[in-house]
Amino acid sequence: MVKPTYGFVTEDNMCLLTDLYELTMADSYFRRGKNQLTTFDLFVRSMPEHRNFLVSAGIEQILFYLERLHFSKECIDYLRSLKLFSSEFLEFLKDFRFSGEVYVIPEGEIYFPREPVVRITAPRIEAQIIETFLLNTFNFQSAIASKAARVVIAAQGRGVVDFSPRRDHGSDAALKVARASYIAGCIGTSCTLAGMIYGIPVYGTMAHSYVMSFPTELDAFRAFVEDFPNNSILLIDTYETLQGARHAVIVAKEMEKRGQRLRGVRLDSGDIAELSKQVRKILDDAGLKYVKILASGDLNEYKIKDLLEKKAPIDFFGVGTEMGVSKDAPALGGVYKLSEDDRGPRIKLSSGKVTLPGKKQVYRVIKNGKMVKDIITLEDEKPEEKEVYPLLIKVMEKGKIIEELPSLKKIQEKFMERLDMLPDELKEIEELKEYPVEIGKELSALTEKLIAEYYKLEMSI
Amino acid sequence: MVKPTYGFVTEDNMCLLTDLYELTMADSYFRRGKNQLTTFDLFVRSMPEHRNFLVSAGIEQILFYLERLHFSKECIDYLRSLKLFSSEFLEFLKDFRFSGEVYVIPEGEIYFPREPVVRITAPRIEAQIIETFLLNTFNFQSAIASKAARVVIAAQGRGVVDFSPRRDHGSDAALKVARASYIAGCIGTSCTLAGMIYGIPVYGTMAHSYVMSFPTELDAFRAFVEDFPNNSILLIDTYETLQGARHAVIVAKEMEKRGQRLRGVRLDSGDIAELSKQVRKILDDAGLKYVKILASGDLNEYKIKDLLEKKAPIDFFGVGTEMGVSKDAPALGGVYKLSEDDRGPRIKLSSGKVTLPGKKQVYRVIKNGKMVKDIITLEDEKPEEKEVYPLLIKVMEKGKIIEELPSLKKIQEKFMERLDMLPDELKEIEELKEYPVEIGKELSALTEKLIAEYYKLEMSI
Repeated sequence: MVKPTYGFVTEDNMCLLTDLYELTMADSYFRRGKNQLTTFDLFVRSMPEHRNFLVSAGIEQILFYLERLHFSKECIDYLRSLKLFSSEFLEFLKDFRFSGEVYVIPEGEIYFPREPVVRITAPRIEAQIIETFLLNTFNFQSAIASKAARVVIAAQGRGVVDFSPRRDHGSDAALKVARASYIAGCIGTSCTLAGMIYGIPVYGTMAHSYVMSFPTELDAFRAFVEDFPNNSILLIDTYETLQGARHAVIVAKEMEKRGQRLRGVRLDSGDIAELSKQVRKILDDAGLKYVKILASGDLNEYKIKDLLEKKAPIDFFGVGTEMGVSKDAPALGGVYKLSEDDRGPRIKLSSGKVTLPGKKQVYRVIKNGKMVKDIITLEDEKPEEKEVYPLLIKVMEKGKIIEELPSLKKIQEKFMERLDMLPDELKEIEELKEYPVEIGKELSALTEKLIAEYYKLEMSI
Repeated sequence: MVKPTYGFVTEDNMCLLTDLYELTMADSYFRRGKNQLTTFDLFVRSMPEHRNFLVSAGIEQILFYLERLHFSKECIDYLRSLKLFSSEFLEFLKDFRFSGEVYVIPEGEIYFPREPVVRITAPRIEAQIIETFLLNTFNFQSAIASKAARVVIAAQGRGVVDFSPRRDHGSDAALKVARASYIAGCIGTSCTLAGMIYGIPVYGTMAHSYVMSFPTELDAFRAFVEDFPNNSILLIDTYETLQGARHAVIVAKEMEKRGQRLRGVRLDSGDIAELSKQVRKILDDAGLKYVKILASGDLNEYKIKDLLEKKAPIDFFGVGTEMGVSKDAPALGGVYKLSEDDRGPRIKLSSGKVTLPGKKQVYRVIKNGKMVKDIITLEDEKPEEKEVYPLLIKVMEKGKIIEELPSLKKIQEKFMERLDMLPDELKEIEELKEYPVEIGKELSALTEKLIAEYYKLEMSI
């Protein structure tokens, strides 16, 4: 009988969460002693559809991986069973550890295409083996943080809660959506496990099935507030929304007599703009101005913008599917490319996919508290502008974290500060605008020199 | 200093991979002794965009969860810290186990909207608590299997390999994409861990960075085939594809002298249709008809169809991002709804989201080996048609698996058989066709009766 398997990723098997070719290439490098120091950049080639800026997220998980990456006996035994690898390489993997240096654009920072977000300098085998996991970890969280930022912008200061677990791409995705959307300014998540693991505030209301399990809606509301007097948000659309609002009023008034306050009501269907106004009026007329309105039901940044333009009096938004899968741009195309090895700075030119050579830094130019432009430079190159700050920070040396990691709350605060610095036109959710990212003079000169050498070489082939 | 956390989901914390409200509702049911037997259906409301049929996948992970679901001390302590739950409920969770009965449409089976894919009968608290995890598990794997099936159909028998890990939504998603796409007929994956955990064949080629790490392309090819004489697929587009093909010929001829055979070459950029023809000719002219051509690079079912219409001589396709995130339909909207409780069959009517009441079965009518229509019936209702088979199979009783679980290979075989039975027009990837799903007479009558009762009730409110 086949035993059911869930397939959990663990600290002991994450080494194999990689494309097979990373390991075969590593074996080949190992056999040939090709293990010189290399530098690789993780960056996004071009802006995804419907995005004006990107948000760094997933760095903490990358650092966790790099600090703890090892090949357990089970994993090495599996690799051996493939009859692909040299026994010397498998032996080498037993003591494998990542020993490199890592620069990152920290989580919560805004970044743009072509800018290295993670810069790895390590012996070639180490730098190669980590590629897939780094991309898997960064691409997804950054995609979600960048999507959630748009939802948060659209909500104009009203709280946004992640309601996505049932539609996310598996269990790890549910945790990472909660984390990445919190970084981008969401106030919490419905994902209880994300609350336990990351300390993210957890939120919940009630389902239609709860209301339906009682003889009447009023019975259901009374029962729920009796059980959760401080935290009840009543779902009022199971039968008829306005009637539901009137039932909520009855219950809220009963609570007041007990010295309690109903926290809110939730709308999940129908014409939310219109219903929210009518519900607000019903609540206000009953002297329940403190009772909040939460809206949910296939929301996204466009619908939220529309609701607020219609002056819908909504205090909180529960956003699920569209944010959890970043529906309008479900994959971020981050890549990981060699920029330098023992022969010096390297460049890749195939099919218009030009990479920037050498160890690089990214500077952001600020004027009057607003971002003006970014400049990608060589590491030692200094931009001419004065009010600049470097985006790439060294966080790991010899495989150990050297920079104190910020708490998730601090990361969120950083993002909110950055959002204040972002030019207003980039905050538009329906119009695409391009933020200027320049290439520094020295980096430009080096790139041109390597392109010229490349074409000379090609002509000589 | 904040310790870096990855956030692994484990057997001990999966109980909290749930929306918070499942647990607050459960507490309320517990306090009120509302724990009668209920039946819930997991089903998809309507066909996602760009899909003609859906493939069941993720059932094994659901059964794993149901058999092992428990609340560890750490999880109960976290719930206590929220100051939301009654101490009696937290005490109850210590010994919580799922004790219900489960029917499923097995993995690899084709299904359609409105058909219950998972039917749970359990005490209300158990049935409620599992909702989010079941949806998270099924929605994603079924979305991917349904997408991958289209890619497999487009490839017309040529092998399709999952190349998606770097773009999937986290680590769990990488494993589940490998598994679900294998169910739908892919021949393997690049995800090494999916090979170890699920026994899926793993595939790999080489990266541009490998070729670039050698002085010349020829050096790189010679090194790789020396290290992997039986499994080398050479990436020939790093510099110039046709030159790359000629280098591959040189290496293949050298291998022949050693009694070895080059397995294949890979194209990853440019005009793949045209290049594959030219590369095939170069290989054939050198007597290397056995050397296969693998194509990759942002492929999807539409591009594969186009390549094969242009008669591109491609033997294998490596498909990544678009399959791994199901780009054109990144979320499957499966829901989980009450269909029966101690008061009898139940129905939900709000906002046109009508559910089907009662314990149900689904029958498939077959004629001349082809699917003709499906009929959703009440459990004890027999359809008039003769050549039918039931889709829902009982797999769990009293919380224990009773049906032998099929191996992944067997699931894949089942899907390939079902694909043969699928009407040809549903296999079209560019045209949308609707397969007939009928409601059985008795189920129709019951539904109408409950609707009538509902409106009578509503008018009396």
